[in-house]
Amino acid sequence: MDDFARTERNKVKRLPQRAQYDKETIYRIVDEAPISHVGFTQEDQPVVIPMLHARIGDTLYFHGAHASRLLKLIGAGHPMSVAFTLLDGLVLARSVFHHSVNYRSAVVFGTGQLVESDEEKLIALEALTEHIAPGRWADARQPNRKELDATFVIALRIESASAKIRTGPPADDEADYALPIWAGVVPLHLQASSPIDDPKLSSGIDVPSYISNYTNTGREPNP
Amino acid sequence: MDDFARTERNKVKRLPQRAQYDKETIYRIVDEAPISHVGFTQEDQPVVIPMLHARIGDTLYFHGAHASRLLKLIGAGHPMSVAFTLLDGLVLARSVFHHSVNYRSAVVFGTGQLVESDEEKLIALEALTEHIAPGRWADARQPNRKELDATFVIALRIESASAKIRTGPPADDEADYALPIWAGVVPLHLQASSPIDDPKLSSGIDVPSYISNYTNTGREPNP
Repeated sequence: MDDFARTERNKVKRLPQRAQYDKETIYRIVDEAPISHVGFTQEDQPVVIPMLHARIGDTLYFHGAHASRLLKLIGAGHPMSVAFTLLDGLVLARSVFHHSVNYRSAVVFGTGQLVESDEEKLIALEALTEHIAPGRWADARQPNRKELDATFVIALRIESASAKIRTGPPADDEADYALPIWAGVVPLHLQASSPIDDPKLSSGIDVPSYISNYTNTGREPNP
Repeated sequence: MDDFARTERNKVKRLPQRAQYDKETIYRIVDEAPISHVGFTQEDQPVVIPMLHARIGDTLYFHGAHASRLLKLIGAGHPMSVAFTLLDGLVLARSVFHHSVNYRSAVVFGTGQLVESDEEKLIALEALTEHIAPGRWADARQPNRKELDATFVIALRIESASAKIRTGPPADDEADYALPIWAGVVPLHLQASSPIDDPKLSSGIDVPSYISNYTNTGREPNP
């Protein structure tokens, strides 16, 4: 996959050595992130809201069951920014100054459009459902006419993007390595624990294997 | 603690039954969230960036080692929005339509100001270090004059905020409960694993107890 052009909009100015612009790296982060943070401007006020997302090619999809403030605004073609962040660890340096976190983050820019056709809506809803738990779409009851009409889907064509990644141990000033202070990394990851049956679950229905095997790590990027 | 006034800016319009406006609920989410997503507008372009944060009373602090685009802009008193999101589980309903996630999220509005005094900078840096790992400030090497001068700290006075929370099992349409489809919740949480020593760590330095006991859950809100 190719790179995004470096422009004023997506160029990483702070710690540029951590920046990456290739689609493969960026999309891997987008696909692994369970949720995203969508930013838009409403009457000069920036607003950030967490959203579920899915990616197909260079398009991001978002949805809502009603025409929310956000969906109306971003569906009208206003500029948006979407951040995807995977927190991988706490980085504890000897000096306060060099404390940090290990992370993989991507920031995407584009404009949103309301999806009108049933065909694209269904493709998007399948991707959104599969993003929650791969394997789920085929198992769950598909949307009916009424639900499809009540669901608003927004497509955001990714125009520009960048990734920023920090990995590895702390980087202290040379003189500080002799200090008697522990330094290192505390790894973090999003952990799934045992599925909890719906209290109203009919008897005799087992947890499906795609759920019992669910982990948030190691997801493959979409095509 | 009291409530934030409900205004056009912070009123939750989508699923308002999930909204909360009391400071205690909102600040508990802010304090537990390891990172935040900061939104601002730069030349009509919304931008969202992940940041480390800390809260003291009604003030949020952010910092950077250099005068980044973000810090310059938010330090100049422009409006900002900051989102804090804790993902607690995947909610798998029988119907695609009722799929969801369990979460606790807070969205905060305010304007940023550059912190000028050494005294407030140090208070903020202590809070930011303690937010990464409680107990760390007293153990690490404190900032020296050069580091303090090179560190930009932004204070954001919280003017308005709201929280949105979803908990519990899926809510399916009555007719769907009879379907032979598994439904329930997959709990998620941010898990710390065993600390990794810095490869350059001097011998004989053990992992401190505040690190080996580190978990991201159950943090107490700040005063």
